[in-house]
Amino acid sequence: MLEDKDAETTNLEKLGEFGLIDHLTKSFTINQKSTVKGIGDDAAVLNHTNKKTVITTDLLIEGVHFDLSYMPLKHLGYKAVMVNLSDVYAMNATATQITVSIAVSNRFPLEALEELYAGIRLACKTYNVDLIGGDTTSSKTGMLLSITALGLAKEDELTYRSGAKPNDLLVVSGDLGGAYMGLQVLEREKEVFKVNPNSQPDLEPYSYIVERQLKPEARKDIPELLKKLKVKPTSMIDISDGLSSEILHLCKNSGVGCNLFEDKIPLDPTVISSCEEFKIDSTLVALSGGEDYELLFTIDQTDFEKIKGNPNLTVIGHMTDTSHGANLVARSGAQIPLTAQGWNSFNTSESE
Amino acid sequence: MLEDKDAETTNLEKLGEFGLIDHLTKSFTINQKSTVKGIGDDAAVLNHTNKKTVITTDLLIEGVHFDLSYMPLKHLGYKAVMVNLSDVYAMNATATQITVSIAVSNRFPLEALEELYAGIRLACKTYNVDLIGGDTTSSKTGMLLSITALGLAKEDELTYRSGAKPNDLLVVSGDLGGAYMGLQVLEREKEVFKVNPNSQPDLEPYSYIVERQLKPEARKDIPELLKKLKVKPTSMIDISDGLSSEILHLCKNSGVGCNLFEDKIPLDPTVISSCEEFKIDSTLVALSGGEDYELLFTIDQTDFEKIKGNPNLTVIGHMTDTSHGANLVARSGAQIPLTAQGWNSFNTSESE
Repeated sequence: MLEDKDAETTNLEKLGEFGLIDHLTKSFTINQKSTVKGIGDDAAVLNHTNKKTVITTDLLIEGVHFDLSYMPLKHLGYKAVMVNLSDVYAMNATATQITVSIAVSNRFPLEALEELYAGIRLACKTYNVDLIGGDTTSSKTGMLLSITALGLAKEDELTYRSGAKPNDLLVVSGDLGGAYMGLQVLEREKEVFKVNPNSQPDLEPYSYIVERQLKPEARKDIPELLKKLKVKPTSMIDISDGLSSEILHLCKNSGVGCNLFEDKIPLDPTVISSCEEFKIDSTLVALSGGEDYELLFTIDQTDFEKIKGNPNLTVIGHMTDTSHGANLVARSGAQIPLTAQGWNSFNTSESE
Repeated sequence: MLEDKDAETTNLEKLGEFGLIDHLTKSFTINQKSTVKGIGDDAAVLNHTNKKTVITTDLLIEGVHFDLSYMPLKHLGYKAVMVNLSDVYAMNATATQITVSIAVSNRFPLEALEELYAGIRLACKTYNVDLIGGDTTSSKTGMLLSITALGLAKEDELTYRSGAKPNDLLVVSGDLGGAYMGLQVLEREKEVFKVNPNSQPDLEPYSYIVERQLKPEARKDIPELLKKLKVKPTSMIDISDGLSSEILHLCKNSGVGCNLFEDKIPLDPTVISSCEEFKIDSTLVALSGGEDYELLFTIDQTDFEKIKGNPNLTVIGHMTDTSHGANLVARSGAQIPLTAQGWNSFNTSESE
């Protein structure tokens, strides 16, 4: 599909580096007041006066972080932006700008990059962030994306990983495990396709979890909701590597322990049914699956009434003294120490 | 050399992603007042109040932008930072922070990455910039580096590509063509080595140009010098792709033409002698070689007296009306239109 076989496609060599950047970015608009100068000079210029700047960066590599045999390029562009914006929201900040660097081998025609940038553009528009720069080059093999996102927050709004205190409540947005189970479905269909290229997969029953994998949404709404509810999290992190790994980050950075209640972990019915189908434990999937891009945060107990009953938020545990350790309280009542089973890119080619 | 054959080397899998980041960055210090929070949260936090933020990013890929058969990893780390800082200085700004993302295949042991980060650390120390974040992951093949640099400038200090006016003088720092000729020498020695692995190359006569290729320095001193001389360039760009390409950028962005005088182009004696040895035209090398990371800028004619005689600066031409075009005035007096022969990564594997 992506090979440059079609006579209608455009070879990248024809455009050259600067022509390519111009072509791919010409339909992007600048909407943020803080963007003084976007693409087109040695550097972009931003006016971040009166607020703190947050900055985060992620590298996505074909064959390590994504598989183009089931990931449409438009979705890839969208998801690559989400991965970065999620980190900005995890600081309780507003995302304002991104830079996008790509390297592609010449197996990709221009039309493939147009698809990728259509996804990036949709993400920029939906989340109101400006594309302000980047780099475009060739690679020896495959595609890689390096995105940096910037955001703004008032100093007293910023939420670090380090502020959790014993007795704080542990809260998560949305539900967990969907992205990982979506990946399992897509990997299975890929194997079926290899055996029988004429098979027509029925992904309809899995649409929620497949979308969680292919088109995740960063939780821009959560910092906004918390502001509205007048709740300032004492600590916050986004869930990219799995709940267990993220909880351990909060515990380590804050110097606290934790009780996570297995029966409180929010799971979508599709996650539960697909876990049964694949014979995987759904708690393990939520703890270790990753890529859900939900926000995990702690709040003071006195704020509980403000968030109680909100359909976007679930209290899943509470922080403890550090000597207690970080534990999963199983349905049986047994306490099981949490381990970082989150993604390790050096010994697996699975998802981040 | 870089293969993980030695029993003394450490496999990356042992550390995992977070362990690796901790290990590689633990000896870095934070020196910039504007760095509020560096590595260790979802995002870094910066305080850029009262100044404008500039941001630039570059992607460097093994086999496209660098060749580890003659580029030591420490030099690569240093150079990768220089490439980015050069863009910050080209805005007439002070470089303050960088993020560094790397992807490596498991052929690299930990010790190789330590070398790379030693170069990055030296660059940070020498140029007084803070490493504040990044991403570390595996790649399917080879190494790649994605660096983003941030800087600060007062609004009225910022220098864009777009401010040149007819009759402005065109000025360049340092000398040109050295990095390209250094690459030619290194490529030649690589071929010799392939035939006779016991040959001991004598690079001493080429030390200046080899260093220009392997360990370039960004011109931090030039914005400082210009401030001291009370000269504000009307436009500025750094020379990464070759003089010709950069002049055309200034002309296009400023809507002016240019006369560049061939006999004014500053060349080091080693560049001239190596061009004779390689039978390459030295003007072509200066125009198209790239990677010199000098600064090219325009100044109002009334500022000429302030820079006159400064050993760091050479007036190489003047801007004209746009209808005149951008021309090289050859030693013969002939006017030759400049073309962008700068590096195009999509049809060459040579230098940027």
